[in-house]
Amino acid sequence: MVIIMNPDATEKNIEDVMDAIVSAGLEAKIMEGSQQKIVGVIGDKTRLASVPVDAMDGVEKSVAISKSYKLASREFHPQSSIVDVDGIEIGGDVPVVMAGPCAVESKEQLFEAADLVKKGGAQFLRGGAYKPRTSPYSFQGLEEEGLKYLAEARERTGLKIVTEVTVVEAIDRVAAYADMLQIGARNMQNFGLLKEVGRCGKPVLLKRGLAATIDEWLNAAEYIIHAGNPNVVLCERGIRTYETYTRNTLDLSAVAAIKHLSHLPIIVDPSHGTGKWRMVRPMAFAAISAGADGIMMEVHPNPAKALSDGPQSLTPEHYSEVIEGIRKLSRFMREMGLAEQIG
Amino acid sequence: MVIIMNPDATEKNIEDVMDAIVSAGLEAKIMEGSQQKIVGVIGDKTRLASVPVDAMDGVEKSVAISKSYKLASREFHPQSSIVDVDGIEIGGDVPVVMAGPCAVESKEQLFEAADLVKKGGAQFLRGGAYKPRTSPYSFQGLEEEGLKYLAEARERTGLKIVTEVTVVEAIDRVAAYADMLQIGARNMQNFGLLKEVGRCGKPVLLKRGLAATIDEWLNAAEYIIHAGNPNVVLCERGIRTYETYTRNTLDLSAVAAIKHLSHLPIIVDPSHGTGKWRMVRPMAFAAISAGADGIMMEVHPNPAKALSDGPQSLTPEHYSEVIEGIRKLSRFMREMGLAEQIG
Amino acid sequence: MVIIMNPDATEKNIEDVMDAIVSAGLEAKIMEGSQQKIVGVIGDKTRLASVPVDAMDGVEKSVAISKSYKLASREFHPQSSIVDVDGIEIGGDVPVVMAGPCAVESKEQLFEAADLVKKGGAQFLRGGAYKPRTSPYSFQGLEEEGLKYLAEARERTGLKIVTEVTVVEAIDRVAAYADMLQIGARNMQNFGLLKEVGRCGKPVLLKRGLAATIDEWLNAAEYIIHAGNPNVVLCERGIRTYETYTRNTLDLSAVAAIKHLSHLPIIVDPSHGTGKWRMVRPMAFAAISAGADGIMMEVHPNPAKALSDGPQSLTPEHYSEVIEGIRKLSRFMREMGLAEQIG
Amino acid sequence: MVIIMNPDATEKNIEDVMDAIVSAGLEAKIMEGSQQKIVGVIGDKTRLASVPVDAMDGVEKSVAISKSYKLASREFHPQSSIVDVDGIEIGGDVPVVMAGPCAVESKEQLFEAADLVKKGGAQFLRGGAYKPRTSPYSFQGLEEEGLKYLAEARERTGLKIVTEVTVVEAIDRVAAYADMLQIGARNMQNFGLLKEVGRCGKPVLLKRGLAATIDEWLNAAEYIIHAGNPNVVLCERGIRTYETYTRNTLDLSAVAAIKHLSHLPIIVDPSHGTGKWRMVRPMAFAAISAGADGIMMEVHPNPAKALSDGPQSLTPEHYSEVIEGIRKLSRFMREMGLAEQIG
Repeated sequence: MVIIMNPDATEKNIEDVMDAIVSAGLEAKIMEGSQQKIVGVIGDKTRLASVPVDAMDGVEKSVAISKSYKLASREFHPQSSIVDVDGIEIGGDVPVVMAGPCAVESKEQLFEAADLVKKGGAQFLRGGAYKPRTSPYSFQGLEEEGLKYLAEARERTGLKIVTEVTVVEAIDRVAAYADMLQIGARNMQNFGLLKEVGRCGKPVLLKRGLAATIDEWLNAAEYIIHAGNPNVVLCERGIRTYETYTRNTLDLSAVAAIKHLSHLPIIVDPSHGTGKWRMVRPMAFAAISAGADGIMMEVHPNPAKALSDGPQSLTPEHYSEVIEGIRKLSRFMREMGLAEQIG
Repeated sequence: MVIIMNPDATEKNIEDVMDAIVSAGLEAKIMEGSQQKIVGVIGDKTRLASVPVDAMDGVEKSVAISKSYKLASREFHPQSSIVDVDGIEIGGDVPVVMAGPCAVESKEQLFEAADLVKKGGAQFLRGGAYKPRTSPYSFQGLEEEGLKYLAEARERTGLKIVTEVTVVEAIDRVAAYADMLQIGARNMQNFGLLKEVGRCGKPVLLKRGLAATIDEWLNAAEYIIHAGNPNVVLCERGIRTYETYTRNTLDLSAVAAIKHLSHLPIIVDPSHGTGKWRMVRPMAFAAISAGADGIMMEVHPNPAKALSDGPQSLTPEHYSEVIEGIRKLSRFMREMGLAEQIG
Repeated sequence: MVIIMNPDATEKNIEDVMDAIVSAGLEAKIMEGSQQKIVGVIGDKTRLASVPVDAMDGVEKSVAISKSYKLASREFHPQSSIVDVDGIEIGGDVPVVMAGPCAVESKEQLFEAADLVKKGGAQFLRGGAYKPRTSPYSFQGLEEEGLKYLAEARERTGLKIVTEVTVVEAIDRVAAYADMLQIGARNMQNFGLLKEVGRCGKPVLLKRGLAATIDEWLNAAEYIIHAGNPNVVLCERGIRTYETYTRNTLDLSAVAAIKHLSHLPIIVDPSHGTGKWRMVRPMAFAAISAGADGIMMEVHPNPAKALSDGPQSLTPEHYSEVIEGIRKLSRFMREMGLAEQIG
Repeated sequence: MVIIMNPDATEKNIEDVMDAIVSAGLEAKIMEGSQQKIVGVIGDKTRLASVPVDAMDGVEKSVAISKSYKLASREFHPQSSIVDVDGIEIGGDVPVVMAGPCAVESKEQLFEAADLVKKGGAQFLRGGAYKPRTSPYSFQGLEEEGLKYLAEARERTGLKIVTEVTVVEAIDRVAAYADMLQIGARNMQNFGLLKEVGRCGKPVLLKRGLAATIDEWLNAAEYIIHAGNPNVVLCERGIRTYETYTRNTLDLSAVAAIKHLSHLPIIVDPSHGTGKWRMVRPMAFAAISAGADGIMMEVHPNPAKALSDGPQSLTPEHYSEVIEGIRKLSRFMREMGLAEQIG
């Protein structure tokens, strides 16, 4: 951390700042500028969080230099991590595809979707049993019944199951049925939930918050790893901006940023990211070319009958084309050596 | 809801859309434009949430007309609500002030702050026992010990206690010590938590999410009221924008918007809203003039030693000036008849 | 400026950075952190702009410490400036009101509006003769004819005229008729235009850009002052955010920020800032309480017939109430000593 | 347009709204909802802009249905347009590459860059002679001298020249030297400039504004086409969001949106879009996979010596790899039939 003093800070102000730093077991160094003095702080970055220097007299602002997360950083773990979900590798050479309906609506709908997802060649079936919905009057999910159908769909198809958990009380129940737990965008900073999924043994898919910075996202991953679970996969799903044509603004530069800052795998969800099924194909291709380790997408046997998020669900035909394109493109990127250039 | 068809939608497309609406128990009317047909949907708005017309062939987009919340709306309850917190009215003629440190750090710190808050004339003591922090390495709060100190501070001063609850498991514990439960910005769409605080008997202070629209915020309030708890007070605390000079962008127009759309009281938190103690005073005055029912602000006996959010905490002297200014300004607004003009 | 080196930067990298700084006539000082080295840069801030250290090998990032504007800063001119527009002071004890229609539509409409604006007690008549409109098919303004009507309205009422100039070629023409030139939000970074209004003798009203930071806004003011015109008044008119209920998000904390960072007067435009006439009154009151030096607002003899921005224009009756409220509130703030507390 | 009336609108209110529509030469139809009446407007969309129905009594809000641009829309021109710049086609099968330094700094620097750009296989040399800079103290460009060097670089290499024009007065001068005029992000809504480049004969590269919606961007293109110049190429260069890790947030979904809404070609600038040279490669690949018609990127013989935007400039080696990757990827997309799937 670097602390920038006001041009009119007194000697006493500077001494107080340096004392506060030293009291926290850190080292302080002073540098004289033309107009302002600067104090550099040296030491273990996890201690800096509790020193409120910005509030001290004579301080203009402080600037963080070290990252506040550690276990999620590439410095800590220079090799890219591969997360193994019951035999399926995420972060390796082959891109994963997680597909399925937004919500589990009935056994028939789910089985029909699962057969379709399997046939297209995806490795994961997705589908929400607990749905976080803006309005209390919208369909809230089938809850445990939905989880049972998901488990049955796994029996039927061999697909791995990834599904969202929204409250601490449901973690054990969801973990009993699913192969991978999803933390949704609205819960990315539900720290109680992060700590508890960090204690459960299952791999976690951590979606980026609606308005989360990349730094906050990696700190959320840090909560899970710090609680004992290193099997975290990130998922970019669009951020909130002023643009209204798309549901969110899919931030594909986050893929390149995460590859640089962290060792964790990252996948992309163009269905939620754009809100329009027409855009899923080009954005899925773009994500793979940017270096994403996989794609999550919504497919519904009959999008026009979907109880939630129909407008962004692919039809079975489009789904097959997208998944085939992803495979070809990923293979081409690797063969041409374009993939290595990205990482 | 109004459904706008594509210029090239077929007769069959339009029929299918109308069938879907009628199957949901709603009425559909068609209107012919110069280039496009429009389908109007008539009926109970809570049913609309489950009809995914946007995904149907031939549909360009749909536009919501009715609001998706009902119990929180001014149409439903034209009189402004007053929320009674153990004898203190929020939403009446006298603005409430909730003040205290960001986090409860020790008994001494809290008592010193409480005495100061009381002396200045506030009605509520605020202070976090459970702190949602971006980094797992930051101070996370004293938890139950902090709650006990808060209850003791109430005994000592007579101030009402408002404090944050972050997980469902802690609701009963927090409710046992506090007079009012706070839902923080990061949990505004933690729907499991909203439902449960809706079932507990205590009044709720619902902070606006970091990037929540006014519509989403009122829907979050709807979750609480729908679960049985009408005693909801909203709190504007700044939204996330591109501006970096302030910690958040305090959206005071939300005060006027809420007064128009809803009957719920609304207070403003200029400490979190700006992140700078220097701005608390002008923004508190502005909030009162805009029609806010109260102010929440951070005050710390010694901001430079605060374990969290020191830069935005007022010193005791500034605090007294702000609270006195709020009182005078509020009285003036009422006496001049300026306050009625706002509502 | 402080330059933060990568943890793996070589000695050579650091030497190169220091050489680049010294070559630019600046001084470099090194500080050793626990993981990273930091290089401090000392010297005249206007030279820093041309040293591209971020691109050098081994550099992680650089952090600006000094502000990039100088003439607009409060450090340069500690006293608050008062801008005199032909005898009317902006930035003094009395808040100015600039009112009128969005666009000049006809002589009759303008005269009717001017009489009304005058009667209410405003000092300035506003109205656009050149209108920057999103669509080429929208009404673009009466151009020189509109300027003539404005000048005639001044003769008729004694009001000062403030009107927008959108292109360099029109500056002389607009300056011949108006008392104050307005730079609109879409032109805040039209640097050619800023330089030229800096050379013309008239005071300038500089609206904040749609997505401009406070720093960029003050740099835009710097362009005008640097070109020779110190008579700049800032106008906050709302910024672009994800919120759709209001047309823009009125950032009243910008008033407090500007008062701290700069000596220039600042007024607020709640009509454009909210896009809803219902919100003009509470936001005007809030702006005055936050310390604004005046209000700009739209008033139209018949808002429902306005050719542009009708929804945000006040009717004559509302206008009178707002202006009277502003006066009372401003006087009260001064008498109670609340105004000084803000500055 | 659909006009939604308040639940408490009177018969008189509705009549007045219908009268206003009919007076504008449009047709009005009424539809009765369960709580509210809705008025549909039928007729030529360019007339709607001047009817301020939102301001009329009893109106809750109006919703635009037709797009406000016409000449730029795909409905108007279903075939994708190809813009011919002196023999080079933009929008055809081969992606164009526009590369060069951010600013022209000297003849030597430009020639060195031009040779490198040519050798890599780009078709266009980019470089600014007029630079719009946030601070008046930053390097503002070599102006006409820079234009001359650009023309000499064309003689030397055969590359086409694209360079920015920032003021109306300079259009003729820039057009005399350049093959294609660039309108920068800060001038996207400088309507005077748009009209004049619409009257000059040269093709125009129209960058998206810092906070422009896709709709506003296409309206800006409409200004140019409407003034007589159909040769417009769009350029996505990142939008302003709350994320600070990247300089802007590159919105690649805009590529898919533009392909759907418009017939105009679109290229992507990952250098400005991310602000980090490390991200140029993955984002260029992603843009091509999303369907972009080309890439604009910054390359500098020695980025660490660049007078502006060094951090985002590629070195010669990286540049060659990126351009080769783009070519291979584009060819693969076409051969596999993946490109058609996008459009």
